[in-house]
Amino acid sequence: MSLPKHVRLVEVGPRDGLQNEKQPISVADKVRLVDELSATGLSYIEVGSFVSPKWVPQMAGSAEVFAQIQRKAGVTYAALTPNFKGFEAAVEAGVKEVAVFAAATEAFSLRNINCSINESLERFVPVMDAAKQHGIRVRGYVSCVLGCPYEGEVAPAQVASVARELFAMGCYEVSLGDTIGTGTPNATRRLFEVVGREVPREKLAGHFHDTYGQALANIYASLLEGINVFDSSVAGLGGCPYAKGASGNVASEDVLYMLNGLGIETGIDLDKLIAAGQRICDVLGRANGSRVAKARRA
Amino acid sequence: MSLPKHVRLVEVGPRDGLQNEKQPISVADKVRLVDELSATGLSYIEVGSFVSPKWVPQMAGSAEVFAQIQRKAGVTYAALTPNFKGFEAAVEAGVKEVAVFAAATEAFSLRNINCSINESLERFVPVMDAAKQHGIRVRGYVSCVLGCPYEGEVAPAQVASVARELFAMGCYEVSLGDTIGTGTPNATRRLFEVVGREVPREKLAGHFHDTYGQALANIYASLLEGINVFDSSVAGLGGCPYAKGASGNVASEDVLYMLNGLGIETGIDLDKLIAAGQRICDVLGRANGSRVAKARRA
Repeated sequence: MSLPKHVRLVEVGPRDGLQNEKQPISVADKVRLVDELSATGLSYIEVGSFVSPKWVPQMAGSAEVFAQIQRKAGVTYAALTPNFKGFEAAVEAGVKEVAVFAAATEAFSLRNINCSINESLERFVPVMDAAKQHGIRVRGYVSCVLGCPYEGEVAPAQVASVARELFAMGCYEVSLGDTIGTGTPNATRRLFEVVGREVPREKLAGHFHDTYGQALANIYASLLEGINVFDSSVAGLGGCPYAKGASGNVASEDVLYMLNGLGIETGIDLDKLIAAGQRICDVLGRANGSRVAKARRA
Repeated sequence: MSLPKHVRLVEVGPRDGLQNEKQPISVADKVRLVDELSATGLSYIEVGSFVSPKWVPQMAGSAEVFAQIQRKAGVTYAALTPNFKGFEAAVEAGVKEVAVFAAATEAFSLRNINCSINESLERFVPVMDAAKQHGIRVRGYVSCVLGCPYEGEVAPAQVASVARELFAMGCYEVSLGDTIGTGTPNATRRLFEVVGREVPREKLAGHFHDTYGQALANIYASLLEGINVFDSSVAGLGGCPYAKGASGNVASEDVLYMLNGLGIETGIDLDKLIAAGQRICDVLGRANGSRVAKARRA
């Protein structure tokens, strides 16, 4: 029952969450969301993505969002930069931390980013080089770590190989994403065991989706393996593109509720987080995806 | 990571679930639900409750339901019998297994069943005696084991004392219920550790509510403590009377999905379970409370 004393939550709602909501929202609403999240005590917020608005209209205006948010000391405001062009735009916008992503399976890589895993990693080389020059930290994502919508089961060794590459390239942390939410607790533990042989565990994070309701059980399993960084999305923003109407990103409120119950410090105020989540749900006209928020507001 | 090889799921949807749904449904619909659940491979179904329909209109017609269901060999069909009168009616209806319930806190006992914990236990004495005579097995429930809507936190020792009494009286199994769903994994583990000193662990079951999304994490924590019997409700039937609109009983489908992922045998067919859950949701005109069902139907 020995668990980490402290956990860092990486709030991905404004990026991963909003990117997967059908309806784009205004820059002003995004800024307000980020500012409200900053006020909860969160230390890491993924604010937006520098990608063509033709492909991802929900992420349009990310530069304006970065320009208008109130930066709070001690909070990291990050951007996803899928390619070098995006990276340059992020630097232009004053972004100090970026994230890149790769897939654990060839089929997902091809369908999602239109190139092989190796090609995607090669594209990151100039990003990593430029990041080093600018003193910008880079976080890496690996998707489909516990299942792929096209290939089914995924071998942990395959994930380990991609994670190792990202780490070797200079990513200071690699987040392992259960993109379709089919992982269960012991598979999660085996994953961290195997990947942990290639990348130090303290450099690994867990990114769980609640599509099959397994996310908190998987996070508890990860804590038992010593993992202490988790990605989550306020109000469960995002949904699952592979199962319309189903849940995607685990709700930050639900993760925080469990961590509070486990006596693990996060520095985050649950009531403020619930309020921020409910406000953005009202803006989107969507049901709140956090069970804790529903129970508290009932 | 050593877990039980086999888990028995106690399906409480037709009783605990339907009892907490606003709208009563017909005997025919209840019979069909129980028959469909029997066909999934479930070995234990709580079919109804023998209680005044004035107090619990949703449970009216339980005798008719017992008379009309198709009993499948190897399946236990149980009834909740809150008092001796209910027990007699259950015997009359040919019921072979009953359940009784007590609360872990005085405040909940008083407000829920209108007597102290000790008074409630004393009322079970004639039920236990008569059950022995009729060769009827009695299962015990303890509610509010990880939190009480009136008293807040609940000491595991308090739960242990009530569980010990029920076991000493002759209950062959005692199910510990997180009635308001506020429990988290390590509190769950401590609970089974403490109660396990008074009642053998193989005689304990876990009954978790998903009101705060913690149920599967708590079930995984229980499995790590060697618990291998869990109550659940198909489609998450029931809701939470202490938080309107919030979830109550954990959905059987979601529990089964996790158990399947953990390689734990249950003998239950997930697809059939999802189908039975969706049909009863259609009858009730309610959203399906199982995340697995939502993901699979998406």
